[in-house]
Amino acid sequence: MNAKDINALARKTKEASRRLALLDTKTKDRALVAMSAALKSRASYIMRENEKDIALARKRGLSSAMIDRLTLTRQRITSMAGSLAQVARLKDPVGDTIETIKRPNGLLIKKVRVPIGVILMIYESRPNVTSDCIGLCLKSSNAIILRGGSEAIRSNIAIFNVLDKEAVKYDIPQGAISMIKETDRKIVDGLLAQEGVIDLVIPRGGESLIRDVSKKSRIPVIKHYKGVCHTYVDASANLKMAEKISFNAKVQRPGVCNAMETLLVDKKIAKAFLPPMIRRFKNAGVEIRGSKEVKKIVKDVRLATENDWYTEYLDLTLSIKVVDGVDEAIRHIMKYGSYHSDAIVARDSSRAAKFLNEVDSACVYLNASTRFTDGEEFGKGAEMGISTDKIHARGPMGLEELTSYKYIIYGNGQLRR
Amino acid sequence: MNAKDINALARKTKEASRRLALLDTKTKDRALVAMSAALKSRASYIMRENEKDIALARKRGLSSAMIDRLTLTRQRITSMAGSLAQVARLKDPVGDTIETIKRPNGLLIKKVRVPIGVILMIYESRPNVTSDCIGLCLKSSNAIILRGGSEAIRSNIAIFNVLDKEAVKYDIPQGAISMIKETDRKIVDGLLAQEGVIDLVIPRGGESLIRDVSKKSRIPVIKHYKGVCHTYVDASANLKMAEKISFNAKVQRPGVCNAMETLLVDKKIAKAFLPPMIRRFKNAGVEIRGSKEVKKIVKDVRLATENDWYTEYLDLTLSIKVVDGVDEAIRHIMKYGSYHSDAIVARDSSRAAKFLNEVDSACVYLNASTRFTDGEEFGKGAEMGISTDKIHARGPMGLEELTSYKYIIYGNGQLRR
Repeated sequence: MNAKDINALARKTKEASRRLALLDTKTKDRALVAMSAALKSRASYIMRENEKDIALARKRGLSSAMIDRLTLTRQRITSMAGSLAQVARLKDPVGDTIETIKRPNGLLIKKVRVPIGVILMIYESRPNVTSDCIGLCLKSSNAIILRGGSEAIRSNIAIFNVLDKEAVKYDIPQGAISMIKETDRKIVDGLLAQEGVIDLVIPRGGESLIRDVSKKSRIPVIKHYKGVCHTYVDASANLKMAEKISFNAKVQRPGVCNAMETLLVDKKIAKAFLPPMIRRFKNAGVEIRGSKEVKKIVKDVRLATENDWYTEYLDLTLSIKVVDGVDEAIRHIMKYGSYHSDAIVARDSSRAAKFLNEVDSACVYLNASTRFTDGEEFGKGAEMGISTDKIHARGPMGLEELTSYKYIIYGNGQLRR
Repeated sequence: MNAKDINALARKTKEASRRLALLDTKTKDRALVAMSAALKSRASYIMRENEKDIALARKRGLSSAMIDRLTLTRQRITSMAGSLAQVARLKDPVGDTIETIKRPNGLLIKKVRVPIGVILMIYESRPNVTSDCIGLCLKSSNAIILRGGSEAIRSNIAIFNVLDKEAVKYDIPQGAISMIKETDRKIVDGLLAQEGVIDLVIPRGGESLIRDVSKKSRIPVIKHYKGVCHTYVDASANLKMAEKISFNAKVQRPGVCNAMETLLVDKKIAKAFLPPMIRRFKNAGVEIRGSKEVKKIVKDVRLATENDWYTEYLDLTLSIKVVDGVDEAIRHIMKYGSYHSDAIVARDSSRAAKFLNEVDSACVYLNASTRFTDGEEFGKGAEMGISTDKIHARGPMGLEELTSYKYIIYGNGQLRR
């Protein structure tokens, strides 16, 4: 694809987005249900294509964790189909009146939800992202251009082929869903220059991919670079609960952005809390990197470096620091964190309120695991991604976050004085 | 200011924004009322400084329209003070719960409004923007860095001095409001590189300024490039009403972004509507540039070029085109418009609904002048600017549009399975 092809694709998608914006909910839902069924009935074809990606990944020596993420089993395809059916059942946000303003001069102003337009999704590895994002965009009447990672290209194309064919059969405008099938990196640069045609870019994947997209894009980008999530155990905490929450936040699935990377412990309860906690972590294979104060209490841990506090391990590794109460915990999180998801475990309500109020993260938790930062867990059905930005959307992005709004003003001859 | 100074200023402002975010509404309102009073009591000082800007503007040969925009009379200062007092009376959006989600596992999720953080305002000419934006940012607990145009530098500094001194006296954190007092352009480039410290950039002024800022910024930008606003007169319109609305939209204040630039007239009523309409425009000194069909009906008009349809005249000049019904009107607006404010005058409700639904502009009007696109006219008290973007804010930006949100999640030991 050269620059002209890219512009033509973007314009064609914009055209389709105009027609998609006018589609009624029933038509969209019917298409989603049919697409869900098609995924299941074409599972063998998708798995065959997926096997080719996996074979290449093995040849390239990708880690077993990476290969696991890439792999599509029949069960995983069924779950993708389930997500599409679930999105069909969610409320359509398009056309919702957000606010009605009546003015003294008789003007009636309605603030109404509309689709954003054309969304460019740039992502890596997990092929289920392909169907999740197609589903959310279709339901919110946004046209989508998908650009997946080369490691999953055959799987992504297979999923796209099945879904797009079905969508068009069920009256979704041709071109509303499209996929870049070439892996040339220059195509991404070309797409990121389509300001005014593509309306929003959502990158999902490793930090370097996201930084690269943000740097080059002339189009608004919504993203999170990384998730350095904290759990702070206050002196007032139920220590048994704190242990369970911390363990869950680190160990239940360490390779994801909402997993805990740093545990902060109030010095008043550090001696009581840390020995059994660290023992439990070690039994689960977690490597601990502790501050000096941690090492004084549990000798057998590696000393954390300054850099560790900034690090998203995405693995069974954990930084632990002893802090002097909630104020130092907040300062630490604001300095080293990534404003993604941070938790306090406490019974003292004023210290809890201080933490929830002053930690400027997308999601702040009281007495729960940070692992809940997720579109489905928030009741949004699925998610396009998670944002740590302050503009437009923050936290898990579902259907509503894929809308903009317009003002419709009804008059009867009003003139400005 | 060198790069280090700029970064230090941005970081200091971020620090102040953290404290400002925690301020209660009463403190903010008390400060705003005092700042409003100070503007009035220091009016003579502000006018003296303003005279120096005007003297220089005359020397530079600026147009009388430009000089008028620059000029601060006692009445204009009183009106600026009135806006600040008005903002003090508006509802504080910070802390509002937008949505409450209860999950089956017992998690209680609250979506709560928070300030955006640090806002960089880059603007030209009218010095009232200085006090309007300070007022809106303070009320919504956002710290602000102001960078006004060199033509109004002394006026802006005077207004800033008066307001900042008063704010600090009334417990607004030092550094929450700051102004760039040097006119070196490189400072703007330095500010636009402060990604992660400055949260949002709002440019207001000429199109070239805004394009330059958007191109260079690594920080999210909300803006409108220009306002090529249309009025479409449908065959079903009350022609007397259509004439009044069109005249108001063009003539009442031609130099602003929500003034009409192009009039579209349904061919079915063109012969009845155009002759008296054009006569009225000409009597008011409006130069007409018409399509061939317009010239057939009223000979004495200049033929419009293709480029005229794209042009924001900001002056007493108007493009007029005869179109074949609402569909051609919509196509014209989507091709040549700027997605700012567009109106239909019609009695036929299905054609009106089609127009309001399909014209993808920030504000779409039925039977009213486009001149109402304005924060105050929408009941928002004042405005930080008008957005034609789809991301975060669209149309006039008031207090709510200056907020982000965070999720606060209350648990009692929930773990992810």
